[in-house]
Amino acid sequence: MPAKGGLFPKALVRQTKGVFIMIIILKNGASKGEVEKLIHSIESLGGITANTIIGEHSSIIGLVGDTSQLNEDDIAASDAVEAVKRVQEPYKMANRKFHPDDTVIPVGEASVGGGALAMIAGPCSVESEEQIVAVAKSVKESGASMLRGGAFKPRTSPYAFQGLHDEGIRLLLKAKKETGLPIVTEIMSIEHLELFADVDVIQVGARNMQNFELLKALGHCGKPILLKRGLSSTLEELLMSAEYIMAGGNGNVILCERGIRTFETATRNTLDLSAVPMLKRLSHLPVIIDPSHACGIAWMVEPMARGAVAVGADGLIVEVHNNPPKALCDGKQSITPAAFDELMKGLRPMAALMGRTL
Amino acid sequence: MPAKGGLFPKALVRQTKGVFIMIIILKNGASKGEVEKLIHSIESLGGITANTIIGEHSSIIGLVGDTSQLNEDDIAASDAVEAVKRVQEPYKMANRKFHPDDTVIPVGEASVGGGALAMIAGPCSVESEEQIVAVAKSVKESGASMLRGGAFKPRTSPYAFQGLHDEGIRLLLKAKKETGLPIVTEIMSIEHLELFADVDVIQVGARNMQNFELLKALGHCGKPILLKRGLSSTLEELLMSAEYIMAGGNGNVILCERGIRTFETATRNTLDLSAVPMLKRLSHLPVIIDPSHACGIAWMVEPMARGAVAVGADGLIVEVHNNPPKALCDGKQSITPAAFDELMKGLRPMAALMGRTL
Amino acid sequence: MPAKGGLFPKALVRQTKGVFIMIIILKNGASKGEVEKLIHSIESLGGITANTIIGEHSSIIGLVGDTSQLNEDDIAASDAVEAVKRVQEPYKMANRKFHPDDTVIPVGEASVGGGALAMIAGPCSVESEEQIVAVAKSVKESGASMLRGGAFKPRTSPYAFQGLHDEGIRLLLKAKKETGLPIVTEIMSIEHLELFADVDVIQVGARNMQNFELLKALGHCGKPILLKRGLSSTLEELLMSAEYIMAGGNGNVILCERGIRTFETATRNTLDLSAVPMLKRLSHLPVIIDPSHACGIAWMVEPMARGAVAVGADGLIVEVHNNPPKALCDGKQSITPAAFDELMKGLRPMAALMGRTL
Amino acid sequence: MPAKGGLFPKALVRQTKGVFIMIIILKNGASKGEVEKLIHSIESLGGITANTIIGEHSSIIGLVGDTSQLNEDDIAASDAVEAVKRVQEPYKMANRKFHPDDTVIPVGEASVGGGALAMIAGPCSVESEEQIVAVAKSVKESGASMLRGGAFKPRTSPYAFQGLHDEGIRLLLKAKKETGLPIVTEIMSIEHLELFADVDVIQVGARNMQNFELLKALGHCGKPILLKRGLSSTLEELLMSAEYIMAGGNGNVILCERGIRTFETATRNTLDLSAVPMLKRLSHLPVIIDPSHACGIAWMVEPMARGAVAVGADGLIVEVHNNPPKALCDGKQSITPAAFDELMKGLRPMAALMGRTL
Repeated sequence: MPAKGGLFPKALVRQTKGVFIMIIILKNGASKGEVEKLIHSIESLGGITANTIIGEHSSIIGLVGDTSQLNEDDIAASDAVEAVKRVQEPYKMANRKFHPDDTVIPVGEASVGGGALAMIAGPCSVESEEQIVAVAKSVKESGASMLRGGAFKPRTSPYAFQGLHDEGIRLLLKAKKETGLPIVTEIMSIEHLELFADVDVIQVGARNMQNFELLKALGHCGKPILLKRGLSSTLEELLMSAEYIMAGGNGNVILCERGIRTFETATRNTLDLSAVPMLKRLSHLPVIIDPSHACGIAWMVEPMARGAVAVGADGLIVEVHNNPPKALCDGKQSITPAAFDELMKGLRPMAALMGRTL
Repeated sequence: MPAKGGLFPKALVRQTKGVFIMIIILKNGASKGEVEKLIHSIESLGGITANTIIGEHSSIIGLVGDTSQLNEDDIAASDAVEAVKRVQEPYKMANRKFHPDDTVIPVGEASVGGGALAMIAGPCSVESEEQIVAVAKSVKESGASMLRGGAFKPRTSPYAFQGLHDEGIRLLLKAKKETGLPIVTEIMSIEHLELFADVDVIQVGARNMQNFELLKALGHCGKPILLKRGLSSTLEELLMSAEYIMAGGNGNVILCERGIRTFETATRNTLDLSAVPMLKRLSHLPVIIDPSHACGIAWMVEPMARGAVAVGADGLIVEVHNNPPKALCDGKQSITPAAFDELMKGLRPMAALMGRTL
Repeated sequence: MPAKGGLFPKALVRQTKGVFIMIIILKNGASKGEVEKLIHSIESLGGITANTIIGEHSSIIGLVGDTSQLNEDDIAASDAVEAVKRVQEPYKMANRKFHPDDTVIPVGEASVGGGALAMIAGPCSVESEEQIVAVAKSVKESGASMLRGGAFKPRTSPYAFQGLHDEGIRLLLKAKKETGLPIVTEIMSIEHLELFADVDVIQVGARNMQNFELLKALGHCGKPILLKRGLSSTLEELLMSAEYIMAGGNGNVILCERGIRTFETATRNTLDLSAVPMLKRLSHLPVIIDPSHACGIAWMVEPMARGAVAVGADGLIVEVHNNPPKALCDGKQSITPAAFDELMKGLRPMAALMGRTL
Repeated sequence: MPAKGGLFPKALVRQTKGVFIMIIILKNGASKGEVEKLIHSIESLGGITANTIIGEHSSIIGLVGDTSQLNEDDIAASDAVEAVKRVQEPYKMANRKFHPDDTVIPVGEASVGGGALAMIAGPCSVESEEQIVAVAKSVKESGASMLRGGAFKPRTSPYAFQGLHDEGIRLLLKAKKETGLPIVTEIMSIEHLELFADVDVIQVGARNMQNFELLKALGHCGKPILLKRGLSSTLEELLMSAEYIMAGGNGNVILCERGIRTFETATRNTLDLSAVPMLKRLSHLPVIIDPSHACGIAWMVEPMARGAVAVGADGLIVEVHNNPPKALCDGKQSITPAAFDELMKGLRPMAALMGRTL
C-alpha cells in the first residue's frame, strides 16, 4: 500500500472497504439510474461491496469481497459499463494465494506432489489379463509408481474399440494384486461410478473436463482425481474444473497437461510445458504431464518427458504397450516396456538435478 | 474410371476388388514380414480387403471395404508404414454420399431442414414462470417456431447459477402449454434423461459434444437431438458425434455451429459460417447457427443471423431475454423481445431470397 | 457521467482531468517509491496525466490523455502493478470514435465503401497477355469493378512459380487499357514500389500485414492500399497496421478479411465473417472479403460471397481463372468466368436487399 | 522393399521408376482425357515421372522425381482427383534426409549447433551506449556467447519506440569491441541490409518469417541468419522459409522457436518445446529457443530455459535488461543481469547432463 495523502499531492485518499478484486469502468454517459441498478444487482448477490469513485469525466466502481459468483461478461452487459477487469482469480480452493503450501496426494504407498516424481505407466487400453499383468510387472520393475490402463475408452468413432468396461477394471485389479501398483483408469459417465470402488485414482479425460455433472459427482467421492486439461481449455478453465471437484469436498485433484489443439500438424497436439510453472504458481495442486497423448508419436515421449521434469512437473503418465503396432488404440504413441525402462534410466539424473526422487 | 490398358501405355491394369478408401504407402525398406503382419491385422477386422501393389522401389496398399473401424494413426504405428491417406470419410450414417436427400426433422408443427427456416428463441436460463411465459408469448408473436431455455446450465464456475433443474423443465412445459411452441433444452447428464420425457428437442452443449456415453444414450431415445459443435472440434469430429447418436438408431440429429475458439478476442468465439455449406455438402443433416453464443455480443446477433441465412443455414437459435442486463447468465449476448421482433422482420426478405419460408 | 456527490452516498466525488483511457490497479503492497517511479515514467512520455486514487487497501491509477505510445505489457512490468486495463483502443486515425463517417475510397470510376458493392476479380497470377486480357474482358462484362492479378507472388516454396514481376504489371496495365478496369496487385517489397506507379490499388498480403517498414513506405504514397488481415492477426492488430499507413499520411486503406488460421482442416482457413460488422463498428474504413483464399475451395466462393454481402461487407475480391486446373497457383480455389457471371447474378438481389448497388 | 512376386500372392509386381514421393488418388469416374491432361501438366514441369496404376474401380498415380515445385492443392484442383498425399517433405536443402549430419554454424569464436550450448543475451532494444555496454559486459561475465539487442524494432503501434536504427547498430558494435561478443540484431527491410555489414548474426523476426523477398536477399549474403518461427507458422513453413535462404546459397540458418499463438491467455504465446526434437529430426539445422518472447513473463524464463535444454535445444536467446521496468519495450519479460547470472548457474548442470558445454 502506498503511504497516504500528502505524499501524493495529486492523489486522493479515501475510505475503501478492502482490496479491490474487480474494477468496473463506467461509460462516460452512464446515467445515475443505470449505475445504481448495477450496484444494487451486484450487492444483492451478497458478500460484495461496491466502492464508487466518481470523477468529472470518468467513474470507476471497485468491488471488494467474494466475486466468485460474478462473471465479467454479465457485468459488461449493463448499458452503464465501458469495461470490466477482474483482478483476482475466480477460483478459491484451487488458488495458491489461499493455500500457499503444495498439496501432496497419497496414492497407496506412492504419492503425487512433494519430493517424489510420480511415474504412471501402462497401456492405452486393457486388452487381456496376460497383457495388463505383463505390462504391470514390467513397468513396476522399471520403477513405475502406478499402473494406468483404459477400461472405458473415449473414441471419436462409434465403430472403434470402446474398451472392456467392467471386465477391464477387473483385470486392472488383478494386475494390482500381482504387483502392488495402485491403478489409474478413466471414468466416462457418472453411471459407472460404483464400478470404480476399488480404483485408486479416477481419471477425467480431456473431453470430459467440462462435464460438470461428472465433476460434481467426483467431488463427493474421496478418491484422488486425475483431471486432464481439455483440448482447448485455458489454464483458468482447468483450475475452475478442479474447483468444481474441490467445492464438493474432494481436495485430491491432480492436474494433467496433455497437449492443446493448435494449427500445427507435425504433432497431434501441442504440448504446453509452460503450463507446469504457471499452474504451480497459480495453484497448490500437483501437475503431471502426458507426453504420449500430447505429441502422439512414440519417439517424442523421451525428450518431452525430460523437458517435463526440467520445467518442474510432479510426474508423468506414459503409454506403455508390450506390442505397440498391435495395440487396439493409440499404438502410434505407445512405447515398449524396454523403451520405458530406458526412459526411466534417462530420467533419474534429471529428476535428481531437480531435487526429485525417482 | 479411366478406360483401361493400352490407352495408358505407361500404366498397369490390374484386378482390384473395389474402390480404394484408404491408401497405405509403405516404407522403402519395409520387410515382407512386417507388411504381411500389417495386412493380416487389418484384414482380421473383417470387411476389408488389402490390395498390395509392389513396385521396384515403392509399394502401396489400397484398402477396399468398410474402414470405419480403422484409425489412420494406428496404422501409421506400424514400422512398415511411411504414410496413410484416408480417401473416404469415417462416418457413414451421417454421410451424404449414402443418403443424398436432405433430412427433415419434424418437431411438433414445426420442422428443421427442408423449406422452412427454423427460429428457436428464448432465454439462456429459465428464471421464473413469469419470465419464461412472457418471453415465449413474445417470441411466438414475432414468429419463432420453438422456445429455448436452459434448465441445466453448464457454467465454468461452480459458484455461478446452475439453473432451476427439474423446476426449469416444468416451467418450460408451462410456457409450451400457453403458446404451443415446442421446447428445446440442454441435457448435461444421462441421469437426468427421464426428466426430459416431455421435452421436444434435447440439446447437447458444446462441452458435451464428445461425452460419448451421453451420445450413446441419446441414440436410444427417439427425440430430435440438437448437437452443438465443440469449441475446438473439427467438422469431422462433429459428424462423428452425430454418428454416435445415429448408430444407436436415432437419425434425428440437428447440427449446430456456435463459434469456435481461436486467438481472436474481439468476439467471444469465432463464428465459422463456412461450416454451413461444408456440413451440408458432407452430410444430409440440417444445420443451424447460434449467433448469440458465437459472438457473445447482443448487437452482433442481427448481422450474423443474416449471414447465416445467406450461407444456407436451416435455422437459428437466438437468446432472447426480457431484461438482458438482469439475466442470470449470458446477459451480454441476449437481445430483447423487441429486438427479436426487428430481427425477424429483417430476416424475412433474406429468407425469401434464399427460398425459405419464415 | 453519473450525477455527482450526494446522489451516491457511498461514492466519492473528485477532480479528474478527463476520461480515463487506461486503468492501472496497483499491488496491495506497492511502495510509494515504486508508484512514484511508475507515474513519473508514464508522465514523462508527454500528453498523459495520471490520476491516483488511494484507498486503504487498494489503489488505482487512472490515465488521461494520449496513451497510444503506452503498451499494457510494459506497464505490467512494474513491480508495483497488479493489473492493467486499456479502456480506449490504441489506434486513433483508424478509429470510428474520432471519424464517425464511413470512409469512401475512389478508385478510377469505381469506389470502395459507400453505397456500391466493389467487386474485384481476376486470376491469382498473371500468366500471359491472352489470359489476363481475356479474364479482364470477361469479368468486366459480368460487372466487376476492378481487376486483380498477381505479378509478385508470395509462395511458401522457393521452387514454386513466383510471378512474372514487372512483366506481370505491364500485362495488367494492358488489360486495364483494354477494359478500363482499375487494377489491384500485390507488393512484396519496398524495393519494387516504383514499379507500382500506374497501379490503382496496392495490395499488402496477409504475410506482410506486419511488415512495418513496407507499411510506413505505403503511408507516404497516396494510392489506395488493400490491407489483408494476417493469418493469425487480431482485428486490433489489423487496425494497428492500418494505423501505420494512415499515420504516414495515407488514409486510403481498404481492410480485407481473408480467413484466419485455426485447427479446422476441412477448409484451408476459417473465414471470420464476424470481422465485418466488428471492424465497421470499430473503424470507419471499408471492409471487403476474400472468399477464395479463405476457404481455398472453388465451390465455396458463392455461398460465402453471399454471406459476406449479408453481414455488410463493402466488397469482394474473388479469384477468377479461365482454366482453373491449369492455373500456375491456387487453381483449387479459382472459379471460371462463367461461374463468376453466375455469382454476380446471384449477388445482385442480395446486394439490393442490403441497400447496395452492384 | 518387400520381396517380390510370388511371396505376395494377392500382390502385383510392376516396373516403377523410383520411390513414390507423391500419391494421387483418382476419382472413381475420372475420364481418360482428364487423367491424361493431369499427367501431362505434371510431367511437363520436368524431372517428374507419373506411374499410373489402374484398377477396376480405383486408380492411383504415383509420382517419382523432384516434386518440390508441386503444390498438393494445385493438383487437387483437377476434376480427376479425389485426394493427394505428399510422401516426401517439400524442402530439400533443409532436409535431414539429404544432409544427415548436424550443421554447426561458427559465429566468431562461438558456434551454434554441435556440442556447445549457445547463449545469446541482451536487451530487447539498444537504448544508449551505457546501457548496451553495461549489459554486454555483465552477460559476458556470466558466460553468454553472443550479445543481442534491437536496433530496428517491429512494434504493433506506429506510435511506439521503433529503435535507434543505424545508431543502435553502431552502439552494438561498440559493445562488441568492448567485450568481444559477436552481435545478433534484427533486420526489418532489405533496404537496411548494408547497415548490417559488421553484424555477426542477422535475425529475421517472427512477423517477417514469410517476407520472402527479404529471405531471398539474405540467401545471397554469407552471414548466419537467425530465423524466428512465425506466430502461426507450422514447422514445415518454417523449414520452407529456411529453404528460401538456403536456395540462395546461404546454408547458415539457425532456427528459433519463440512461442506460437493459441487461445491461451495466461502466457503471451505458447512455447512449443516439442518443436525442438521434431525440427532436429526433420532438419540438420540448429534450433534455439527464445523463452522471453514465448511466455512474455520474466519469472518464466528460468524454468522454460531449463526445459529447452532438456528437450535438446542448441541454444537460448534471452532478454536481459539492466532495469526491466524502465525498458523502452518488452520490460515485462526481461530479466536482470543478476537473474541471468543465476540462470546460467542453474543451466550448467542441466547442459552437462545433456552432453553440452556451457
